[in-house]
Amino acid sequence: MRSSILERASDKAGLPPGSPVPVGVEPVRPRIRRIRYDTTASEEGEIALATLLDELAEGPRADTVTWIDVVGLADADAIEAIGRAIALHPLAVEDVLHVGQRPKAERYENVLFVVVKMVRMQDAAGDLDVEQVSLALADGVVVTFQEREGDVFEAVRRRIRTNLGALRRRGADYLAYALIDAVVDAYFAVIEAIDERAERLEDAIAEDSGYDATQELHDLRGQVLTLRRIAVPTREMVRSLLRVEEEVFAPSTRPYLQDLYDHALRIVESAEFARENLTWLRELHLATVSNRMNEVMKVLTVIATLFIPLTFITGVYGMNFKYMPELEWRYGYPAAWGVMSIVAGGMVVFFRRRNWW
Amino acid sequence: MRSSILERASDKAGLPPGSPVPVGVEPVRPRIRRIRYDTTASEEGEIALATLLDELAEGPRADTVTWIDVVGLADADAIEAIGRAIALHPLAVEDVLHVGQRPKAERYENVLFVVVKMVRMQDAAGDLDVEQVSLALADGVVVTFQEREGDVFEAVRRRIRTNLGALRRRGADYLAYALIDAVVDAYFAVIEAIDERAERLEDAIAEDSGYDATQELHDLRGQVLTLRRIAVPTREMVRSLLRVEEEVFAPSTRPYLQDLYDHALRIVESAEFARENLTWLRELHLATVSNRMNEVMKVLTVIATLFIPLTFITGVYGMNFKYMPELEWRYGYPAAWGVMSIVAGGMVVFFRRRNWW
Amino acid sequence: MRSSILERASDKAGLPPGSPVPVGVEPVRPRIRRIRYDTTASEEGEIALATLLDELAEGPRADTVTWIDVVGLADADAIEAIGRAIALHPLAVEDVLHVGQRPKAERYENVLFVVVKMVRMQDAAGDLDVEQVSLALADGVVVTFQEREGDVFEAVRRRIRTNLGALRRRGADYLAYALIDAVVDAYFAVIEAIDERAERLEDAIAEDSGYDATQELHDLRGQVLTLRRIAVPTREMVRSLLRVEEEVFAPSTRPYLQDLYDHALRIVESAEFARENLTWLRELHLATVSNRMNEVMKVLTVIATLFIPLTFITGVYGMNFKYMPELEWRYGYPAAWGVMSIVAGGMVVFFRRRNWW
Amino acid sequence: MRSSILERASDKAGLPPGSPVPVGVEPVRPRIRRIRYDTTASEEGEIALATLLDELAEGPRADTVTWIDVVGLADADAIEAIGRAIALHPLAVEDVLHVGQRPKAERYENVLFVVVKMVRMQDAAGDLDVEQVSLALADGVVVTFQEREGDVFEAVRRRIRTNLGALRRRGADYLAYALIDAVVDAYFAVIEAIDERAERLEDAIAEDSGYDATQELHDLRGQVLTLRRIAVPTREMVRSLLRVEEEVFAPSTRPYLQDLYDHALRIVESAEFARENLTWLRELHLATVSNRMNEVMKVLTVIATLFIPLTFITGVYGMNFKYMPELEWRYGYPAAWGVMSIVAGGMVVFFRRRNWW
Amino acid sequence: MRSSILERASDKAGLPPGSPVPVGVEPVRPRIRRIRYDTTASEEGEIALATLLDELAEGPRADTVTWIDVVGLADADAIEAIGRAIALHPLAVEDVLHVGQRPKAERYENVLFVVVKMVRMQDAAGDLDVEQVSLALADGVVVTFQEREGDVFEAVRRRIRTNLGALRRRGADYLAYALIDAVVDAYFAVIEAIDERAERLEDAIAEDSGYDATQELHDLRGQVLTLRRIAVPTREMVRSLLRVEEEVFAPSTRPYLQDLYDHALRIVESAEFARENLTWLRELHLATVSNRMNEVMKVLTVIATLFIPLTFITGVYGMNFKYMPELEWRYGYPAAWGVMSIVAGGMVVFFRRRNWW
Repeated sequence: MRSSILERASDKAGLPPGSPVPVGVEPVRPRIRRIRYDTTASEEGEIALATLLDELAEGPRADTVTWIDVVGLADADAIEAIGRAIALHPLAVEDVLHVGQRPKAERYENVLFVVVKMVRMQDAAGDLDVEQVSLALADGVVVTFQEREGDVFEAVRRRIRTNLGALRRRGADYLAYALIDAVVDAYFAVIEAIDERAERLEDAIAEDSGYDATQELHDLRGQVLTLRRIAVPTREMVRSLLRVEEEVFAPSTRPYLQDLYDHALRIVESAEFARENLTWLRELHLATVSNRMNEVMKVLTVIATLFIPLTFITGVYGMNFKYMPELEWRYGYPAAWGVMSIVAGGMVVFFRRRNWW
Repeated sequence: MRSSILERASDKAGLPPGSPVPVGVEPVRPRIRRIRYDTTASEEGEIALATLLDELAEGPRADTVTWIDVVGLADADAIEAIGRAIALHPLAVEDVLHVGQRPKAERYENVLFVVVKMVRMQDAAGDLDVEQVSLALADGVVVTFQEREGDVFEAVRRRIRTNLGALRRRGADYLAYALIDAVVDAYFAVIEAIDERAERLEDAIAEDSGYDATQELHDLRGQVLTLRRIAVPTREMVRSLLRVEEEVFAPSTRPYLQDLYDHALRIVESAEFARENLTWLRELHLATVSNRMNEVMKVLTVIATLFIPLTFITGVYGMNFKYMPELEWRYGYPAAWGVMSIVAGGMVVFFRRRNWW
Repeated sequence: MRSSILERASDKAGLPPGSPVPVGVEPVRPRIRRIRYDTTASEEGEIALATLLDELAEGPRADTVTWIDVVGLADADAIEAIGRAIALHPLAVEDVLHVGQRPKAERYENVLFVVVKMVRMQDAAGDLDVEQVSLALADGVVVTFQEREGDVFEAVRRRIRTNLGALRRRGADYLAYALIDAVVDAYFAVIEAIDERAERLEDAIAEDSGYDATQELHDLRGQVLTLRRIAVPTREMVRSLLRVEEEVFAPSTRPYLQDLYDHALRIVESAEFARENLTWLRELHLATVSNRMNEVMKVLTVIATLFIPLTFITGVYGMNFKYMPELEWRYGYPAAWGVMSIVAGGMVVFFRRRNWW
Repeated sequence: MRSSILERASDKAGLPPGSPVPVGVEPVRPRIRRIRYDTTASEEGEIALATLLDELAEGPRADTVTWIDVVGLADADAIEAIGRAIALHPLAVEDVLHVGQRPKAERYENVLFVVVKMVRMQDAAGDLDVEQVSLALADGVVVTFQEREGDVFEAVRRRIRTNLGALRRRGADYLAYALIDAVVDAYFAVIEAIDERAERLEDAIAEDSGYDATQELHDLRGQVLTLRRIAVPTREMVRSLLRVEEEVFAPSTRPYLQDLYDHALRIVESAEFARENLTWLRELHLATVSNRMNEVMKVLTVIATLFIPLTFITGVYGMNFKYMPELEWRYGYPAAWGVMSIVAGGMVVFFRRRNWW
Repeated sequence: MRSSILERASDKAGLPPGSPVPVGVEPVRPRIRRIRYDTTASEEGEIALATLLDELAEGPRADTVTWIDVVGLADADAIEAIGRAIALHPLAVEDVLHVGQRPKAERYENVLFVVVKMVRMQDAAGDLDVEQVSLALADGVVVTFQEREGDVFEAVRRRIRTNLGALRRRGADYLAYALIDAVVDAYFAVIEAIDERAERLEDAIAEDSGYDATQELHDLRGQVLTLRRIAVPTREMVRSLLRVEEEVFAPSTRPYLQDLYDHALRIVESAEFARENLTWLRELHLATVSNRMNEVMKVLTVIATLFIPLTFITGVYGMNFKYMPELEWRYGYPAAWGVMSIVAGGMVVFFRRRNWW
């Protein structure tokens, strides 16, 4: 699973770089949702590709921000046409279509191109759902490309509709920030879900209920590694945003980018922490298993050892020698029991004293 | 526990950045304590929010330093009003209310905003008590925001009241330094408590008293990781203070910041050292457990092995063959005992020579 | 195997640096394939060494790119003559012939000299096939030196023949990029093959089928280490290309180099990930083996322990004392069975309750 | 022990920074030894505090170097007075008195303040003796503060007395260098003592004499960690001396500082090496213990297993069935011995072939 | 052994820095071999110290390179006199005599001073032979100081004698490069010898022949650590040569230094690789040992367990109860055998099904 998320680039081997061929994408035909807003009004709806291309050809409207949200990447020609309309470099268009990219930010002349990974918990059982979101920020226009329906941007849309917060009063750069921020903020929920699973697992191990934690540890570790693998380049991506900012991002947006970087740092730290935690949990688990095994072996061995000398004594008096005086004694049998009791008692005392029992 | 200290940011997912909504805070209504001092006098007392806002609106008094200590974050409106009165950026106000921040220092125009973590041992049993303290340094004013009553600033208050040391002769920047220094100095006590627990644990393991150290190791490691997780960004925060200093901190304050950075370095080193120490203790513990187990198994196996050949001999003479010459011998029975004694003695010698017993 | 790929430099110890003596190369006599193209036409074919040297002496043709592909390094004089014809430094010629170089890029006056490692899966069983490819980029000419027939450049040749993509419209620098890109892209296929083997191995371990995974883990780890050992200096090599670019690479080629660097980063990350994964798999494997062993030991020990007290009882009534009242009882024998059943049942209950059985 | 060396800073929590209160120091009242020399003569002796302060008030004599060696820190007022006399910053005076500092070098206006750790082997048994030495280098004056009598400076004193080497021909900066060099050089002896202990331990482990190396490993590791903890900041301290040099250290002293830095590097490398060595020794020790245990278990189990089938056979012929033909045979008993010999011999052959015995 | 190679600096503790006292050197009196050459001729032979000093006093001859090879360091005065004659700093002379230096390059005014470690395999058994070679490069003169006869420079001498390669046409800087290169190239042979030992060891472990690999692993690891300990500072030394080059090394020598740096990088990587390989081999070895042990235990335990129920049955019919109906049966004895066969067969089937046998 993991490899299919971040690699699988070999399928396009042999094609010239910049070839607009989808790699690893799901067969979802693009649907285009356009949101347009200025300080006074906002407008939202699905539009056809041709209409969009015409509008983009007219150039940006003053004081208006347009967000074009393309969902589904299965139609390479459409994606390429949109890319061309906003002067996106062919290599960036290729990256949109090959969904195995690392999170990154690249500047192609007037367009800032950002790749992020949208991560959510799929369900209670808790598989991770990873989806590539590519974002292009041009003059007055933000274009996002998603692999399939369902995203973490609903809150941003609501803020546009309801004019909550400062979003509508700011430019396209702030919208781009808000969208990346939404993706990064969603990582916190994933981290928390992982932490909760880890805590439940820790309790289960501590209770020593014989429950085998190996598989759960394995799953959790896969999630933590996936998250870390996404978080580290995301942090670098945000850091590079802080550096290119003076041209692309308005000065008033800068504190927000700094805040975003702070969040990315926290994600990376939390992922590191979770990984260390899992290592420790694994060791705790191994120690518990080994402890239980030791307990079993010890008790069983003690019992076995206790009876071995006794069985020897019964063996002695089971011998058939003609001349065995003890066998003739009146109280030989009770005496044998007495000897055996003394031996057994002595061994129990010895074991107890050494804390073996 | 750990995750609730530094994360839990997902609760605000969907809100615009800068939203003044408390996240993770305890339901403690803010109380405002104001301390005002110059070189000649100091004044200390609790004041109402409205009074405070009026005073702040008047602007700073010359040569007077005002420390506003806000305890309790459950009233977002009050916090926001205070923030607005000292021109604190909305993102900083948000950070005050979301107590899962990393230690950091940020410059917003004329205000320096610092987040630190106040760490204390809760009690003898020794859980860590972590509380976020946010500090804003504006012109002549220092505002601190704490989550709840109880802090490590009492010594600073006493120095203000008694005019001990240079504090009253210096500006608000020195007060800010003194408060951060108080927080960082408190880490030393935590480190020492952890070291003492580790030493007691080491003694317990060395005594090999059968005491199970796994849980104690687990607890200690949680504390060390928490401390390290706080100490590393704190060190970075102090380093960044050293860099922004020429505008905010007076030159005479610089050696103190350098000293503070030195303390932060020592905390980080101590935490690293404690972590390595715990790793070693864990290995020592495992080796001890495994040694004890080996001892048990060895002694028990030796006993069992000793009796097995003897039992075989008794079995031989317990057979019911009609023609077994030994059984008819006059001294067959004592001879059997003799053979068994020789076998047993030989094995004991063999075991002893090999150091197995 | 590994050492022969990247080392074996001691064979030339004692020779002056820059000596054109093949080290570690296979006995393949050089064959020279020349591809010449401009925007309108392309020409491809094998030529003799003498012809090539004459052509190179004439200097580069305007607007024409010449790719000279030398396959086989066993004729040092031929290699040296070609090197001299394009003004390649003797040290670079030496590196061409000593195939144990690290991936690297070096600038010798007007010639850019690049060493890369071509890696492919040899077959289904999956040994890695590593071959050194040296590339010299001079004015209008790219010379590649390969150890033997078979490479990953077929797609580039097809793009030249069919005029697919931008390749024919660009200069020799872009051809050099395209060739290095082909080598790096081939790593993805190797990573995927390794990941698939690792996944199959993980399944086999999880199934716990008694299959011994040690050898497979050992092989996989050898491949991952080899790949990482190649990937890390390759990344550094591409990074150094990004720095020397302004003189050698046209500005329009720059985004492509950036893209190449991005790929190299992903390769390194994937190799790191694969290594961590193998470490975890090894631990999973050890845990599984140890678990199975524990299960065996536990069940067997339980059985043994169960019968030991019973055997003791039979021993007691096998004793030959003259006066043993039980032996005379009418129902002594069934009573013995009863006692034994009760003891056995009690132990089973005890084991079950403790979850040992 | 460790924590008391480098921490214990919490005792002064609550005091203003720069407070001259001794923390962690031994109750040794200061004694002041003054050495004065120029190229022609040297003068050495103990002087009273008042005399010293008067002299210092007069200012430095031309061409004369004065070394004031203060031993014992229990009198804070005296220390503070000396500090004030050479214009040492209060924070530095505080560091002199709080002996838990990290090695460091700080520049306070005209005074260079250096903290180093003097480390010696206490005795043959080999505990480390760590003592803080603070050094202040002002114009023509070097002041050293030691915790107690006994140091590594005797050779420096002898060089001053006997005019051996260049020491008397150079300034106070060279004296400061010579003193720090003496401290650092003493680390080599500690490293060698540790290495020798490690070698003896390695021999003991290899001899497999049943000697329990756990405690020795634990002690050695404590020493190595302590040394590393001191060596790493010492290296940084010397590096910082190399950077501030142009103002404080004469150009002719620079190669000596470089040499000192080289020594510090070697100390750190040696400490790292010793740590890796100990890790390996620990693993060797564990492998040896586990090997011995395995040997024991194997031999014992083989013996036990050998007799179990034999005992079964004796059990068969110990049964009391009325009709057991073998029991009536003339040579039944010798036949039983024959069968048992064959079974035992077969098992021995089987064990031997599998290399189990 | 290791510590004596790189440390042992404590012997000179107490001496002033720059003291020309041999530390750790073997008692080999210096012999001086002088090689002089220009483009037309070369001259080689042993000369007396006095003659050498006279020649050096005359100053360098134009266009002539003189290589003075001093073998044996036991005469400190001679070494010091030579050092003074070429204006070598006393600290460098001290480093020549104290053979525990780290590889390093230092610039003292007009003299470049380089310390390298000459490493060779002592013999087939394969101990490492480490010898310090110090090299001083002054105007037209290269002086090398070796500890004893025997070196890796024979190939350089042959190139001078036979005028092979460019050596005679270049200056003293190129000779210095050639000598350092000879030392570094010799490391490759050591790495290969180590790799071959490691491969043989891996085969031995895989064959599982009961051969104890612990000691061999320990030896190999010692060699790898020693080599790495030398290789890392050597790489740094060569890097520093690349930086000081513009004054000391002619531009035409620069590519050769770059090549040398490349070799040093490969040595370090190979040493790292060898170390990782050994770690893995150790784990493979442990897994093999543990596997074999498990196999033994399992088979033995299975055998023991098989007979325990059978022995119980014989015990039952060995009891002496008066009324045991089975004993009277005509076919009781064969029936007992039947029951025992069924029990044994059932257990075998059970074991087999669970893959325990």
